Amino acid sequence: MRRIIVINPNSTQAVTQEIDRAVEPLRLLEGPAIECVTLKDGPPGIESQLDADKVILPLSNYIRSRESDGNAFVIACFGDPGLHSARQVTAKPVFGIGECAMATALTRADRFGIISILQDAIGRHRRTVRAAGLESRFAGDLAIDVGIQGLGDEAMVLERMIGVGNRLRKDFDAGVLIMGCAGMARHREPLEKATGLPVIEPTHAAVTMALGAILIPQ
Amino acid sequence: MRRIIVINPNSTQAVTQEIDRAVEPLRLLEGPAIECVTLKDGPPGIESQLDADKVILPLSNYIRSRESDGNAFVIACFGDPGLHSARQVTAKPVFGIGECAMATALTRADRFGIISILQDAIGRHRRTVRAAGLESRFAGDLAIDVGIQGLGDEAMVLERMIGVGNRLRKDFDAGVLIMGCAGMARHREPLEKATGLPVIEPTHAAVTMALGAILIPQ
Amino acid sequence: MRRIIVINPNSTQAVTQEIDRAVEPLRLLEGPAIECVTLKDGPPGIESQLDADKVILPLSNYIRSRESDGNAFVIACFGDPGLHSARQVTAKPVFGIGECAMATALTRADRFGIISILQDAIGRHRRTVRAAGLESRFAGDLAIDVGIQGLGDEAMVLERMIGVGNRLRKDFDAGVLIMGCAGMARHREPLEKATGLPVIEPTHAAVTMALGAILIPQ
Amino acid sequence: MRRIIVINPNSTQAVTQEIDRAVEPLRLLEGPAIECVTLKDGPPGIESQLDADKVILPLSNYIRSRESDGNAFVIACFGDPGLHSARQVTAKPVFGIGECAMATALTRADRFGIISILQDAIGRHRRTVRAAGLESRFAGDLAIDVGIQGLGDEAMVLERMIGVGNRLRKDFDAGVLIMGCAGMARHREPLEKATGLPVIEPTHAAVTMALGAILIPQ
Amino acid sequence: MRRIIVINPNSTQAVTQEIDRAVEPLRLLEGPAIECVTLKDGPPGIESQLDADKVILPLSNYIRSRESDGNAFVIACFGDPGLHSARQVTAKPVFGIGECAMATALTRADRFGIISILQDAIGRHRRTVRAAGLESRFAGDLAIDVGIQGLGDEAMVLERMIGVGNRLRKDFDAGVLIMGCAGMARHREPLEKATGLPVIEPTHAAVTMALGAILIPQ
Amino acid sequence: MRRIIVINPNSTQAVTQEIDRAVEPLRLLEGPAIECVTLKDGPPGIESQLDADKVILPLSNYIRSRESDGNAFVIACFGDPGLHSARQVTAKPVFGIGECAMATALTRADRFGIISILQDAIGRHRRTVRAAGLESRFAGDLAIDVGIQGLGDEAMVLERMIGVGNRLRKDFDAGVLIMGCAGMARHREPLEKATGLPVIEPTHAAVTMALGAILIPQ
Repeated sequence: MRRIIVINPNSTQAVTQEIDRAVEPLRLLEGPAIECVTLKDGPPGIESQLDADKVILPLSNYIRSRESDGNAFVIACFGDPGLHSARQVTAKPVFGIGECAMATALTRADRFGIISILQDAIGRHRRTVRAAGLESRFAGDLAIDVGIQGLGDEAMVLERMIGVGNRLRKDFDAGVLIMGCAGMARHREPLEKATGLPVIEPTHAAVTMALGAILIPQ
Repeated sequence: MRRIIVINPNSTQAVTQEIDRAVEPLRLLEGPAIECVTLKDGPPGIESQLDADKVILPLSNYIRSRESDGNAFVIACFGDPGLHSARQVTAKPVFGIGECAMATALTRADRFGIISILQDAIGRHRRTVRAAGLESRFAGDLAIDVGIQGLGDEAMVLERMIGVGNRLRKDFDAGVLIMGCAGMARHREPLEKATGLPVIEPTHAAVTMALGAILIPQ
Repeated sequence: MRRIIVINPNSTQAVTQEIDRAVEPLRLLEGPAIECVTLKDGPPGIESQLDADKVILPLSNYIRSRESDGNAFVIACFGDPGLHSARQVTAKPVFGIGECAMATALTRADRFGIISILQDAIGRHRRTVRAAGLESRFAGDLAIDVGIQGLGDEAMVLERMIGVGNRLRKDFDAGVLIMGCAGMARHREPLEKATGLPVIEPTHAAVTMALGAILIPQ
Repeated sequence: MRRIIVINPNSTQAVTQEIDRAVEPLRLLEGPAIECVTLKDGPPGIESQLDADKVILPLSNYIRSRESDGNAFVIACFGDPGLHSARQVTAKPVFGIGECAMATALTRADRFGIISILQDAIGRHRRTVRAAGLESRFAGDLAIDVGIQGLGDEAMVLERMIGVGNRLRKDFDAGVLIMGCAGMARHREPLEKATGLPVIEPTHAAVTMALGAILIPQ
Repeated sequence: MRRIIVINPNSTQAVTQEIDRAVEPLRLLEGPAIECVTLKDGPPGIESQLDADKVILPLSNYIRSRESDGNAFVIACFGDPGLHSARQVTAKPVFGIGECAMATALTRADRFGIISILQDAIGRHRRTVRAAGLESRFAGDLAIDVGIQGLGDEAMVLERMIGVGNRLRKDFDAGVLIMGCAGMARHREPLEKATGLPVIEPTHAAVTMALGAILIPQ
Repeated sequence: MRRIIVINPNSTQAVTQEIDRAVEPLRLLEGPAIECVTLKDGPPGIESQLDADKVILPLSNYIRSRESDGNAFVIACFGDPGLHSARQVTAKPVFGIGECAMATALTRADRFGIISILQDAIGRHRRTVRAAGLESRFAGDLAIDVGIQGLGDEAMVLERMIGVGNRLRKDFDAGVLIMGCAGMARHREPLEKATGLPVIEPTHAAVTMALGAILIPQ
């Protein structure tokens, strides 16, 4: 049976569960298995470049150890840590959720806005957008400024996401929104309804790409 | 049952059949139906900007007439004719195969090369790449220069595609190839093997995106 | 006698008259005739991508039918509908007023601002600017938000244009203004005086280009 | 009577005569006078950045001295020396032939190629293209490598221009050619015929722009 | 003994003294001499494009006259007047302080903001940034709007610089600040402390580059 | 005494010695000490993205351990591994030699070419150039294709560098060359002489920047 392995590079099991929820609709009879795993060696959350860089080796090692099991791999952290290293340790396709979210957004509207959790992420995201050569489709990036401990307050998180999403639509002319973080799937639909814009959940976008890479005409 | 409607805007039934073949692997139990239709009012082939512009109205009319049947629409011509008009006549997502092929290619390598059928298409493709804001990921576009009547000679077509694909890899530093035309699915796998690069079949890429838009976490 | 044929692709005769007024100063003894015509098959106004796409075939047919009469053609709608198709049906030069207005603006100041009629046009214009590769000279695009029926209230239209023009100058650092619509010639001079910036009337810009293409050193 | 003053910033009278020939077709009854003058203080030819910079002050002084006579000024050297300074000393519009040639080329084809006289000019032209923000419409720049003394051999000059023009078309995919030097008007038409591409003579392009700026709807 | 010659192209001796102060920390035992000179033929201040263009010839002449004395030259005006001409009259490296300040800023943060003295300079700086191909690293440019006579009021100047610097950090997301004018060295450190961002003094940046060009491994 | 700490992230002592040679001319009486160290935990050479990612943690740890000793840090590997993480663990400025080499090259000519050791590095370098926003100043990147064991054959290495450097000058129009690898200082001067272009040794460029950051006006 074909298998897509989705790796949450932080060690927080609750995030992996939310990732699992994001990809559940893509599990179809006859389709590939979609396995969501937690990287045990990861930090509780990836909140800085150093956090991101720290998971590269464990991630690459994990992917190497699963090479024969997986038909495609997904790195489920928006900063795509270790994406290019991972592609070096396996011949199977490896997808980064940040890259896939942006690519998917291009097919839904002229310009995408990113909703970040923390202000600090915005600089990293801008480098990512520029490295991807997608600056001219990038409307802007705004943070909800909620720390990890605050993410449990779902009503508040959603409210801030809606606020930020509406600002991206009105003041930055975004036509599609990207959730700039894994593990936020439950907020996708209400955010779409409240802003009137399509909302891309990044792990879902990447697993969709992985499906396409596996279910390919021979 | 959910349904993706793929419209071949030229009237050549054989092309629709080849499109059908491209998307066959994406038909899964429990997944959306994927219906490939031929636009009766289209020209036999779309070989110029005027051909492309001519199909916009019939395409929009067709999509409007199927609005209640389809959960997503795909315009299966690489030039994405009428994409923005189509998005105006339906609230359902509409995907262009050119746009989706380029977006998908971004997730597989640093720079994409396009294999065109006719030399004349290259100028149109370049405008499309620029309008998409993807110039810095674009390696180049080369034509196999085979007219519609010549496309039946499959061995020759594949041989030229391989020649052009290898030039895009070696001389233009392309890391992924896009087939710049619908209806070429049968050549995808041999082309991939002969060039050593991933090859994107554009209708397949667009239907994958459509699946993602439909099989979405609520 | 040489002749420039200017086609108003909407069927509103009053717009054609205003276009005629725009180009009147370019009618010179010994110079080419400048004929302004209304496309009978066009919609009353072009307010959407679908409206724009609908006129492409009638426009191309009209140009083909006048091939032997005209030394140059001008498509007098800011979105340049059918420009590339039109260039395919005639060997004579064809000019789009949007393209010519932007090109002309480049010669007057560092960055141009566009004054649109409707908010909806802004997204289309942004795609046009990007497809033209002119993003780094583009200051911004603001709408006066007046529907077709409101355009008769000239004082109000001018007042809003001045308001928007001044915002483009002060907040967006535009050094030249483009009227993002045909048929506004009467407001050009007062707008220039009120904002202190050169104002480009797009049909006038295109007919100037057409003059240059005809009155050429042999 | 309205007047466009075209200034040849080099002191070679023969170049001014050839400039005069370029703009002759734009002299129309009822149209503005077009006066071509030689800047006495200029060097015999402008072949380097230092040559270009040397003429800025005399040019500005000359324009200031003619302020009340001229309705528009044209600086007839492809490098547009002193364009921004000139705009500071007069409220009348000032056009640079390099800028106007590129702007005009945008309205004729997707990408322009430049034919330079000397290899050394190419670096300066590239800075100019980049400063103009027109890199994505720029196909390439090739030199005919003929020194000032060689320019008298017209047959050889034309032959090299055709050779370079054809290379720009075939190898660089240029759709329109720009003569990257004033004083070459006599070669325009044969070059157009031999290459099959429209050819922009830069002073002619700038005087056309100046006509548009003067013959303006009030 | 090796020597870097820093030329203040305006004739104001006080500015040269402040430039001298900027480079004093780079004078090291065994290191090159750093000589700061005033261009006698320059205007009291360079406040416009015409002022800038006026100094090109005297600057080039001065550099030529010192060719045998200097191992490197620095043009100490932020607009880098005559940089390309100067490079033509000497084989020694010539540095412009604007260019060097931007290059240095790239190594300190993702995006640089420029603090200008006068509003009028902003347009010139934007052309410079675009010509340098550095638009995507450019956060913004704001002026303190103090005329030459006001620059003596140091407390006010510093206060405005801090205000503008903080706006560039907060509203424009600048990560490093560039002083867009020579002769402001005394404000560098307090500005850095007040804004929390690294501040580049442009003449210091250029002399550092010149040191690197001289103290080179053989 | 002030101190710049230059870290060779590979464990090959001979490379550190060559780095030391590169920076020797920047050691001046009264200037900062320049200490070149070998990262013990690094691989023998950094030849892939995975190699580069592997050194990030040891590098960050090392920098943290030397925080109080160093006034500035230099990461002496052309790919700038861990640069953003390193900036997070210390408040002292951290310089990457790739970034500094490109920034320095901007001040010497219009476009820079990169000489790489291995073909594989070119893709990584292209991502780096794009992430730096410097595409429009980038002429090209060519490899000498010599493995680590071959680098000992100095005559052959220099000969290939000269060959590649001359191709970058002639065919890619590079005006300055960057050595795309640390530890090549001995070839800098002969390469400069043989190609006629300035050649940037990257560690030297970064230490120059570090000097500027330390020897700063207060």
